[in-house]
Amino acid sequence: MASEFDIIRRYFEHHSDSVKLGVGDDCALIDIGDGKDLVITTDTLVGGTHFLLSEDPFAIGFKSAAVNLSDLAAMGATPKYALLAITLPFSDEVWIEGFSKGLYSLLNQYDVTLVGGDTTRGDILSITLTAIGFVASGTALRRDHAILDDDVWVSGSIGVGAVGLLVQEGVVKFSNEDERDFLRQLRKPAPRIELGQNLVGIANAAIDISDGLVADAGHVADKSGVQIVIDFETIPTHPALNSSRRELKIKNSILEGGDDYELLFTSTIDSRDQIENISCDLGLVLTRIGKVRSGLGVVVRDDGEELIVSSEGGFDHFAKTK
Amino acid sequence: MASEFDIIRRYFEHHSDSVKLGVGDDCALIDIGDGKDLVITTDTLVGGTHFLLSEDPFAIGFKSAAVNLSDLAAMGATPKYALLAITLPFSDEVWIEGFSKGLYSLLNQYDVTLVGGDTTRGDILSITLTAIGFVASGTALRRDHAILDDDVWVSGSIGVGAVGLLVQEGVVKFSNEDERDFLRQLRKPAPRIELGQNLVGIANAAIDISDGLVADAGHVADKSGVQIVIDFETIPTHPALNSSRRELKIKNSILEGGDDYELLFTSTIDSRDQIENISCDLGLVLTRIGKVRSGLGVVVRDDGEELIVSSEGGFDHFAKTK
Repeated sequence: MASEFDIIRRYFEHHSDSVKLGVGDDCALIDIGDGKDLVITTDTLVGGTHFLLSEDPFAIGFKSAAVNLSDLAAMGATPKYALLAITLPFSDEVWIEGFSKGLYSLLNQYDVTLVGGDTTRGDILSITLTAIGFVASGTALRRDHAILDDDVWVSGSIGVGAVGLLVQEGVVKFSNEDERDFLRQLRKPAPRIELGQNLVGIANAAIDISDGLVADAGHVADKSGVQIVIDFETIPTHPALNSSRRELKIKNSILEGGDDYELLFTSTIDSRDQIENISCDLGLVLTRIGKVRSGLGVVVRDDGEELIVSSEGGFDHFAKTK
Repeated sequence: MASEFDIIRRYFEHHSDSVKLGVGDDCALIDIGDGKDLVITTDTLVGGTHFLLSEDPFAIGFKSAAVNLSDLAAMGATPKYALLAITLPFSDEVWIEGFSKGLYSLLNQYDVTLVGGDTTRGDILSITLTAIGFVASGTALRRDHAILDDDVWVSGSIGVGAVGLLVQEGVVKFSNEDERDFLRQLRKPAPRIELGQNLVGIANAAIDISDGLVADAGHVADKSGVQIVIDFETIPTHPALNSSRRELKIKNSILEGGDDYELLFTSTIDSRDQIENISCDLGLVLTRIGKVRSGLGVVVRDDGEELIVSSEGGFDHFAKTK
């Protein structure tokens, strides 16, 4: 719904010099002096839209934190504080306990302090978390700095969360063990905080994959004024999907599925060794899936064919060309 | 709904040394170095709960900003940045324009930059604004520093917003001009930013009146471990209410009505001249309405009687004793 925020921004007259990055990246970036930039992001999860109301409250709490921390990860920031605004249609202590445990399991892991909040009554369960972190001044990873000839990398496995959604809906079947993997990724995605921090000074551009691989690659291409070419064959995914990766549902999950919260980043060829070292240190697979070249938008190469994804009108909707 | 936030806080293990004030005051207060404290607050307005869905979108936008800026005002902070998370059940450009104009009319007035946000789709219109400001380190006004023998002051007129709600509901009638005053206060409350800033170093404790005069005085009493005594007769209100101030609906509006967003503050007797000067400088009426003494809770004196409002169980519900 970028267009709605575009309308909202029309009436916004004031631009502060201390704001290095405002609406449009994963987070806002504010120079607060003392050699630090403040990194701040806010995300809303609405019951029925972003999660099922029947879902385990622990998973809802966990995901509320994960979505925000992932935005900070994409900037290379160290998360420090959070504010929680929650609208509840009921007063159910067991639910609130479960939600809180899920939220804190992740906030406590990253030493994030909940500093404030607001609880309100309303007909729909809605959770808005605001997360605040810091980076050394001028070092934040951004969407708009991809450079020609950069490698394009992703962390972890892609499309796993989206297949988790298909499993949850009963649309696809796998072994019990594999289904547990898919559902875990959907419900308990790991924000790549340590990776983001390690990529500061190495990656030229970064984004977290929340809208889908192609859409988020598109955001980087669009903001950086470049084209990103992705080799479909090289995209890492769950082993159980390798044989079916060209089936429509699975291919769409890999290219268009959100909910992975992995990082996509670009960096020069010279950085390959450093990135392999980071991968070893963190025990996290990092895979080269493409290149940055001149042009617009995202191109997905597969089986000798190129699927061109136009940047016109943004990447909110991935227009397939057969 | 303090009890729900209490449950949420149970699972919160991590306390950062840099957090001077967390959940429980108007805002969180964070030491960010460089001689500054970061002041941050978040508030949600839910359609049907906090405003009518039929209400003018300009007023909804204005109030979203006012509620948050008022929290910063109560801390003596200078507002700088805001993040908007909005859930829309429709895509109506005219509505969004109206809302944005209302939001910005106040944000622009105080040079507040909108640095980020999130637009989501959901069945209920819901607006969460997060506002960020700064104060010189250690100077923020707080709820918990009221001192024995302090005067208790309020800005502006009390109960006006609540009577605006009665006018809106058709429960009471006044002259057209007076009704316009009441509705303006309800729909376009002025956050007392300049007053808060001027009270830094002068007031011992401060709060904005959003829950109602007695409830908010109760928050100060409770947090400061003192009793606040208010003389009903001295509470400033709209001239049109003076003759009817003891009628139940009006009295309740003055003592319990929210929506005024005036400041209540306490300061030593020695500060009276300084406060009168601030009043002159700002062209804003400041009125002494009571005293701080030892004890608990809030006492409202009227007609030789004392109405004791217990602090037990918090002040969410104003228990009247006949």
